[in-house]
Formats: sequence, structure tokens, C-alpha cells
Amino acid sequence: MRAGGVAAVHVTICYHETFRETVANIAAWNRRFEAYPDLIFPGRTGDDVRQADREGRTAIFFGAQNCAPMEDDIGLVEILHTLGLRFMQLSYNNQSLLATGCYEAEDPGITRMGRQVIAEMNRVGLVLDMSHSAERSTLEAIELSSRPIAITHANPAFWHPALRNKSDTVLKALAEGGGMLGFSLYPHHLKHKSDCTLESFCEMVARTADLMGVAHIGLGSDLCQDQPDSVVAWMRNGRWSKQTDYGEGSAAQAGFPRQPAWFRDNRDFARIGAGLRAVGFDTAEVARIMGGNWLTFFDRSFGRAPAVAAREPAHHAG
Amino acid sequence: MRAGGVAAVHVTICYHETFRETVANIAAWNRRFEAYPDLIFPGRTGDDVRQADREGRTAIFFGAQNCAPMEDDIGLVEILHTLGLRFMQLSYNNQSLLATGCYEAEDPGITRMGRQVIAEMNRVGLVLDMSHSAERSTLEAIELSSRPIAITHANPAFWHPALRNKSDTVLKALAEGGGMLGFSLYPHHLKHKSDCTLESFCEMVARTADLMGVAHIGLGSDLCQDQPDSVVAWMRNGRWSKQTDYGEGSAAQAGFPRQPAWFRDNRDFARIGAGLRAVGFDTAEVARIMGGNWLTFFDRSFGRAPAVAAREPAHHAG
Repeated sequence: MRAGGVAAVHVTICYHETFRETVANIAAWNRRFEAYPDLIFPGRTGDDVRQADREGRTAIFFGAQNCAPMEDDIGLVEILHTLGLRFMQLSYNNQSLLATGCYEAEDPGITRMGRQVIAEMNRVGLVLDMSHSAERSTLEAIELSSRPIAITHANPAFWHPALRNKSDTVLKALAEGGGMLGFSLYPHHLKHKSDCTLESFCEMVARTADLMGVAHIGLGSDLCQDQPDSVVAWMRNGRWSKQTDYGEGSAAQAGFPRQPAWFRDNRDFARIGAGLRAVGFDTAEVARIMGGNWLTFFDRSFGRAPAVAAREPAHHAG
Repeated sequence: MRAGGVAAVHVTICYHETFRETVANIAAWNRRFEAYPDLIFPGRTGDDVRQADREGRTAIFFGAQNCAPMEDDIGLVEILHTLGLRFMQLSYNNQSLLATGCYEAEDPGITRMGRQVIAEMNRVGLVLDMSHSAERSTLEAIELSSRPIAITHANPAFWHPALRNKSDTVLKALAEGGGMLGFSLYPHHLKHKSDCTLESFCEMVARTADLMGVAHIGLGSDLCQDQPDSVVAWMRNGRWSKQTDYGEGSAAQAGFPRQPAWFRDNRDFARIGAGLRAVGFDTAEVARIMGGNWLTFFDRSFGRAPAVAAREPAHHAG
């Protein structure tokens, strides 16, 4: 990360973990923060990114890829924010209590509980992330949320029609709502997967900038650098099935796919910046795409919303 | 229960409780079993009902009104059955990980995880209960389940069109699948609610017998005798909302509704038997509706399904 100039990372602290298990994952990060203070520290605000950049360190921001850690308890939204959570996906591939995942056959949109939870996330400053959610649920989340939302890691379906990639309709609505798309570098989301070229990736970014506006795009690498295949098995299967789900992989290719040659790990971010210049973005635009847009988004998203009248109606006797 | 000749009760051990909280509720029942062995004991099979009847006691069967206690873990289906659970609803009013509840605006049917869990419930002998589920989810559960399912407590919508009551389509499919309907005596499910007459109730049973066949109906009283209003608040609200949901009640009538005069508590079951005779059922039919049909259903539902080949496909290298 230091070699790649990465001042902030949005890390996954939950795929299917319950509240207690997610807290254990946070505690594991706390031990890393204690052991390596010269390299990393907990990120909570945009200013933490500026500090990391000044000090040559990396601010670690927590995200949950699922609503599993809040279980069935709306009170846990604020608790998780207090513990440092800054992004939470409303669903991960499957139907959740809040929204539908992109692998379900049907998408009924945001549930009764989902509507309540979106309002609470807006209130405390926990960003809705719809990366693994289905189309209708995503459009409804954009509509229902009073604050801009994010699709932190996905690509446009026009470039590579994976189930996880997003339609023009979603991308336009996301931008119109002030939201952010993070371009994924996970091979299953790339055209020609592990063999995707840097040129093709950067041309896709340019087309997406035309669609969404350059202010609404950034990187969301989905980088699983050096993680064991047990992590991908947990991601895909959790505890919900007795059968093995290979997700975007297959029985023959069950593990993490090989990264493209031009983005092997965190050291290669500069290559993407150069690639973006090569397809015609100017220096200021490249700086925004490589991190400036996310920083602006962090600045306005992680704080508490201005106070509004309490939603609970007064109780009248008759 | 003794005065009413009740040899078996299906009790609720969970509305929104997690696995651990449900286990605490089971432990609370274990303390009752220890304290009152002359009155109650744990019911696990149809034979336990026969034993209770012989000994003048009541067998207590555990049911969960929601899939909350299995959390996101298919392995908990068998664990819960081992702990005595015999019925589990796939959803309670809201969308769950498995199915849709009857209060959601949209019903996409059984989810990916739901399909897996139904097969596992079928395998271990845990009965699917769709009392609080929405129409399409209920029809799909009947279709997907390899064993008969139950709607343990609801009435036909043709008689009283509450959201919780069931359409002719559902009732016919339930009977065709070998399933059981338990008629509810909860006032919100009754025509004219607390003022419902015994005659009206028994005429409804007769019409339902014409629709479903007399073999597929029984009682499912939904009796909340002497429970405090905090229980109904928990049922309706769980932890999923910061607003108060009054369910079938209202702000002005938030608590448990008054029981009809002819079914105040467990002592009044004989009145229903007499009412059924009065609308034309013969003695044998009354015996079946008052408990015989449920006993047959218990006999064939709570044991393990015949072994089948493991579902997990073998792993091949290429």
C-alpha cells in the first residue's frame, strides 16, 4: 500500500458474520492497528485520509458486504457506526431482511424493515452500498435514501455483462442521486476476466464518465491480495446452504481468479492513473478518479445528518 | 388445559429471538417441565400425545413463528429439531431470509436459501408453517416441500378477509399437498372479531371442510391466555423498527383483543365440539377436527425422512 501510494482502504469486515462475529473481526483489526501504527490506523472521516496522506500511512475504513452484522436489530445501525462501520451493503447476492441480492431469481425491492433501516443509516452516517444487490432493490435504495449512496465495487454491464455489474439505468440513477461508483478490478467483473487489458479497462472508465459524469466515479478494487481460497468459499457459501455455491467461479475454478498482469496488487495503482491519462483524461480528472471523488464523498457522508423531528408519533390515549 | 381436555399444545418459543435467545426460551420451558411434571412434559411425537391423554397431562410441542432462531445457518435446522422444535414458520409478517411475510407489499416467493432450508426441514422432520407468510411464498412452499406442510393458525379469507387469513387457492393447494389448516380463535382473525359467534365460526369450519376435505382441518387456537401486552408488542415490533407497528390492532387498541365469550380460555374447547355437532358434523368428524387429524399429521411429520443420496455433488478435478 505504501509503494502504491494508497492513503485509504475500504476493507471488508463482514460477509456473513453476525454482530458478535463482526465485532471479533473489528477486534482483530484493532490488534493490527496496535502492532503496525507506522503503517495503518482506523479511518473514520475524510480528514483521516488527508492525515494518512501527510504521514505516509494508510487509513483503514470498515465496510460490511452484507447487513448480517445488524441482525434483526435497527439499534445496531448506530452501534456499528460507533464501532467505525462506514459502509454497509443491504444484501449480498441473496435476499436479506432489507433488500434482494443479485443472484436471486426475483427482486421485490426494499422490504418493510429495509425502509426503516435506510432512514436510520441516513441519520447516523452509514453509507448504503448496493454492490451485490439486484436492480430493483438498488433503484429503490437510491430513491428512498435521503443521502447519496455508493456502489463501491462493480463495473458497467455494457462493458462486461456479469450479474454483478450494473445497468445504465442504475448507473445514471446513482449519479443523479449524487452517488459514487467504484470500478472493480476483480477478474470476474472484467471483460476477458484475468486477461483484461489496461486499455480496455480505461476505455470503459471513459465511457462510464460520459454516462455518469466524472464526479461520480472512482476505484473500488475488490482486491483480495494474498487471501486464502477459504475466504472466497465463505463469501459465496456462508452457512446458508449444504451445497457448494461457486458464485462467479466454477467447480473447476473455485478459488480466487488470477489478477490481470497490470494490476497484481496495491503497488500497481499508478499504472491505472497512467492508463487513464492515455485514454484522454486530464491530470485533474485522473486525480479525482484515483481518489479525489471518494474523498469528497467521505467528507459529506460519514457524519450525522442534521437533526430532524423524532419519527415516533406521540401516543394519544384515544 | 386439564379442564379443557387438552392433551397437546403447540407453543410458540420464538417470534424474533435469535438461536441463543430461543435456547433460553427452551430452557425456561425445561424449568416448567421440572416444576410441574404432573401437568406437562415435552412433546416430540404423536405417541407423546397419546401418553398425555392416558395420563391426564399435556404434551408441549415447540414451534417457532419465524425462522429467526436458525439465523443464517442451515446447520441449525437439525440442531433445533434435536432441541425439540417441530414447527417453524418461514416468515413472520415481514420478509425473511427464506420467504415473504403477509404484511410486505411484494411477495417474490421462496428465496435461494429458502429452497435449501425446505429440503433440510423435510429431511429432519421439522414442519413448515406458513401461517404468517404471503400468498405466493405459501404456494411455492407447498410445491417445493416433499412432505405435507401446515398453516397452524389462520382462517379462510372468504369468511373474514384479514391479511393473515388465507385464500381458497392456498387452502386447496394445502389440502392437495396433504397439509393441515388450524382454525384460529384470535379475535383479529374472526368475523366480527371479539363479537364473533360460535355459530358463525362453526359454519365457517363446515364451508372449509367442503373446500379442503375434513381430513385437513383442525384447531390452532392462537390463544394468548393471560399473556401481558408486552408479548404482543414484541410479536409485532421485534427490533426491526423505531416506529411502533400495531399489526392487526391500532394505537387505540394496542394490546391483546378480548376473546369471544364462547372461547375465553382452554376450558372452552368442548363448546367448539358441541358447536361443530350443531352445524352437522358427526361424532367421528368432530373428533378428527378437535384433534384426530393433527395426531395423524404429527405421526407422519416429525420423524426423519427416508435416507436419500447425499445432495452434495462429488468434486471432480477437471
